[in-house]
Amino acid sequence: MEQVYRLVMSCPDKRGIVAKVSQFIAQYDGSILEANHHTDTQSNWFFMRNEITASSLPFGLTTFKEAFAPIAKSLDMQWHISDSHVKNRVVLMCSKQSHCVADILNRWHSGDLDCDIPCVISNHADLKELVEWYGIPFYHLPVGEDKASHFNAVSEIIDKYEAQTIVLARYMQILPPQVCAKYAGKIINIHHSFLPSFAGAKPYHQAFERGVKLIGATCHYVTEDLDEGPIIDQDVARINHRMQPEDMVRLGKDVEKLVLARGLHMHLEGRVVIHQHKTIILD
Amino acid sequence: MEQVYRLVMSCPDKRGIVAKVSQFIAQYDGSILEANHHTDTQSNWFFMRNEITASSLPFGLTTFKEAFAPIAKSLDMQWHISDSHVKNRVVLMCSKQSHCVADILNRWHSGDLDCDIPCVISNHADLKELVEWYGIPFYHLPVGEDKASHFNAVSEIIDKYEAQTIVLARYMQILPPQVCAKYAGKIINIHHSFLPSFAGAKPYHQAFERGVKLIGATCHYVTEDLDEGPIIDQDVARINHRMQPEDMVRLGKDVEKLVLARGLHMHLEGRVVIHQHKTIILD
Amino acid sequence: MEQVYRLVMSCPDKRGIVAKVSQFIAQYDGSILEANHHTDTQSNWFFMRNEITASSLPFGLTTFKEAFAPIAKSLDMQWHISDSHVKNRVVLMCSKQSHCVADILNRWHSGDLDCDIPCVISNHADLKELVEWYGIPFYHLPVGEDKASHFNAVSEIIDKYEAQTIVLARYMQILPPQVCAKYAGKIINIHHSFLPSFAGAKPYHQAFERGVKLIGATCHYVTEDLDEGPIIDQDVARINHRMQPEDMVRLGKDVEKLVLARGLHMHLEGRVVIHQHKTIILD
Amino acid sequence: MEQVYRLVMSCPDKRGIVAKVSQFIAQYDGSILEANHHTDTQSNWFFMRNEITASSLPFGLTTFKEAFAPIAKSLDMQWHISDSHVKNRVVLMCSKQSHCVADILNRWHSGDLDCDIPCVISNHADLKELVEWYGIPFYHLPVGEDKASHFNAVSEIIDKYEAQTIVLARYMQILPPQVCAKYAGKIINIHHSFLPSFAGAKPYHQAFERGVKLIGATCHYVTEDLDEGPIIDQDVARINHRMQPEDMVRLGKDVEKLVLARGLHMHLEGRVVIHQHKTIILD
Repeated sequence: MEQVYRLVMSCPDKRGIVAKVSQFIAQYDGSILEANHHTDTQSNWFFMRNEITASSLPFGLTTFKEAFAPIAKSLDMQWHISDSHVKNRVVLMCSKQSHCVADILNRWHSGDLDCDIPCVISNHADLKELVEWYGIPFYHLPVGEDKASHFNAVSEIIDKYEAQTIVLARYMQILPPQVCAKYAGKIINIHHSFLPSFAGAKPYHQAFERGVKLIGATCHYVTEDLDEGPIIDQDVARINHRMQPEDMVRLGKDVEKLVLARGLHMHLEGRVVIHQHKTIILD
Repeated sequence: MEQVYRLVMSCPDKRGIVAKVSQFIAQYDGSILEANHHTDTQSNWFFMRNEITASSLPFGLTTFKEAFAPIAKSLDMQWHISDSHVKNRVVLMCSKQSHCVADILNRWHSGDLDCDIPCVISNHADLKELVEWYGIPFYHLPVGEDKASHFNAVSEIIDKYEAQTIVLARYMQILPPQVCAKYAGKIINIHHSFLPSFAGAKPYHQAFERGVKLIGATCHYVTEDLDEGPIIDQDVARINHRMQPEDMVRLGKDVEKLVLARGLHMHLEGRVVIHQHKTIILD
Repeated sequence: MEQVYRLVMSCPDKRGIVAKVSQFIAQYDGSILEANHHTDTQSNWFFMRNEITASSLPFGLTTFKEAFAPIAKSLDMQWHISDSHVKNRVVLMCSKQSHCVADILNRWHSGDLDCDIPCVISNHADLKELVEWYGIPFYHLPVGEDKASHFNAVSEIIDKYEAQTIVLARYMQILPPQVCAKYAGKIINIHHSFLPSFAGAKPYHQAFERGVKLIGATCHYVTEDLDEGPIIDQDVARINHRMQPEDMVRLGKDVEKLVLARGLHMHLEGRVVIHQHKTIILD
Repeated sequence: MEQVYRLVMSCPDKRGIVAKVSQFIAQYDGSILEANHHTDTQSNWFFMRNEITASSLPFGLTTFKEAFAPIAKSLDMQWHISDSHVKNRVVLMCSKQSHCVADILNRWHSGDLDCDIPCVISNHADLKELVEWYGIPFYHLPVGEDKASHFNAVSEIIDKYEAQTIVLARYMQILPPQVCAKYAGKIINIHHSFLPSFAGAKPYHQAFERGVKLIGATCHYVTEDLDEGPIIDQDVARINHRMQPEDMVRLGKDVEKLVLARGLHMHLEGRVVIHQHKTIILD
């Protein structure tokens, strides 16, 4: 794939932002492959993402950053630029169920998910062989009485591999607040319900009890408030009265893995911006 | 359409029920057009719906009932049989918004919704002309201070027309418990969210605040517990961060009218059985 | 709704286009509400749509056009700008079936479809009363032996009302090539199949014969090649082996009216650009 | 899972079939877990599938067959009965792409797909390690000049393992007519388009050229007529003008693997009956 720079910006909305940024790119003869804007009218905040062909620019990322900094400053921007040829480092965390991990690894192995996966962490050993078949280190860290030391160990591994993204691929433990805070905006979870319906434990059993006609899954950033983080993507599948909770579990897996893969894909392309407690998807 | 009898039964599950019922039909040379069964394994309860070609039987509904009663009794059945050529009388209740009422009336007028609509009741006059254009009486009953007398008036009209089904087609009032109880299993509501998410008032605004990526609608039977009745059908539509609550309102209308029409259609064909706080759809 | 100008442009792709256009808008302190670009890499063609708040500009449409013309010329642009407060004039054409016409009229009447509907033309009188109830003139022009004179009459009415858009809302006649050519890019049709499957007559019967598990509908611009014009939107509905062609006809109506409404909505907001034999949807 | 017998029957329609069959089951005190019927009114043909709890019957499959044979004969039935505890032997055939094979193997390994997979056959070696990781023999049979001898070798392996089902999981070769005939009703293919649109080679490129707004996949039985066999299941995914054929290929994989898994699941439960050139899904 062609090398592109992804410039993602947000700032207080005012007139002329697009002109300034596009003028900056044009003056170096940069070629904009894709551009998306959004203004949140409630908070009066502006969001923009540009994909610029790397080869069209006369300089690399370091010089770009230096040259762009004054404009960003003048507009009170929060911004970052990333290089599509530098892969995001994604650590997967899982438990016993394989469907999400197997799906992500197959996408990664097939070249359909553009990232590095330096390691997988799990509180159970069930998926060790599957993960190692892909040549990826597998850390089995059982959760014991002392949860604090468990999460310290998890955090050490995440830091050791300099993970930029942590994917909870049906990892069934609740992360402690300090872990949520430390990796804020970097932890993606898949919850097996259509949030805000059926937050918490055993959502398919809750769905069965309520008698809904669709089940769903939600991919979201993790915050300290369980199942309350900014939603990236959601989807549903139709069910009927013949289905028992275990049928919903089986059917739901397809929705979970698809929604998680879509959300992660958007995240890795730098298309997801967290704003307050929601996401803006610049696609 | 060919005249059919719809025989709907439920009873404690045991072996041989299908044999007994189908043997009964076969002995009169009845032709079964469609048959559906379901056993709820939690409650050990059996459900069955048969469509029998009327012309294949040597007698009419009265004799059928007499002949079938002993079998039904021996199996402790709750059951009823209806004639597809006798139309269900459906009273619509609405408020100011027209999309659901207009959609139902157009389906009915086009011959796609098999029922009679003897009258429409509303607490606002906005849809009077639309309804009367179809030749249907429109009762404008404003809700004042004295809610009890309002609902007495509503109930009188429902009874006057011997309504078998009451459809709340975006009727924005909460029915009092005694009305819910009086017409239990006969009142169908469309709620403009994917229940149990966003029950109560202004669900699209709630959805906007939470930042979900899909909105939905739910067709359900009305019980005393607001938005907690047995669900008949649900569906969703995709939204994005650009949409304001008013965009969701506009998009949601399409889901509401479709889900209501589908649920009503199933109900009119006698396919929906309420069991405890859920529905079984015999299709 | 706030008054906006919709500036839609296409031109050979080169660097700096966005900068030039956004610089032009910024120099007059114009506020861009929404902006979308696309580059077709096969043909190396660039597309852009900007929504600009009218009140943010110091002049009206006439001055805007004069001021923008030199930039457009320098970039070899095809472009137009429209005012959201000047409604598009949409002539509906229909036949006997009411679902699409009734749906469009209800949306229009509810304020959900932003256009004028100066008249409806039909080769049958069936929908006359429905249309006239909305206060819209209805022209009943039967198709006889002399098709040429029929279409001359149709064309005269379209021209008399200065229609900018013609919607074939289940109008069952094939338009002659000269009519297609005269109103190129202005005629929107709804075809009751998932094109390119089942082009031509009786698509639901074709679908029944083939045994597909989904039926669909396609909203497209009309060209001289029947059912081959640029596709605006499509959708599907699930069917099963129990459904006869007439069940598909009934179910398909819901897909038809929804897809037509969505396509027309996009068209009226100036979001649909025809490029070669496809559409680009700038949303 | 509880052991059940699946009795699947078809015969000329007449009155009393359900009574005879259910009477037969009831006389041995058999417990019917699930029952589905269908009458094809065009051909006047009747279809029925019963799931009977094995433990409720006083005898096994052999005696059941002997006892049921006279009834079947009297009704001119085609029928078979299978034991849910005897797994169907499914041979997978693939080429280079891994998504369908990896998905099926993960489902099988997780216990979500109830079958044996005695071997995988491929004309390329790419997926050998993936398959062998699951402990399944992998046969690499390259296609050379002599196609006939290739397919003889394929057929020998299929026969050696006594395969009851052959799944073409993105196997990119066209099977010769004699292979299609030999395994008629046993070969399931996934085609990467919404048939009948885009049959044949490179359907995503065809879809890109046509400018459709949805892509799809079709799971069907293989017959001598390429992409014309009875359809089991289909689904679609939304695309837009920004997507190149390679994006459709990536997105389409999700639809392909889901539709193939659903179709295979139905087939393995004995729910799919081929009637003329269509399928009846008894669920």
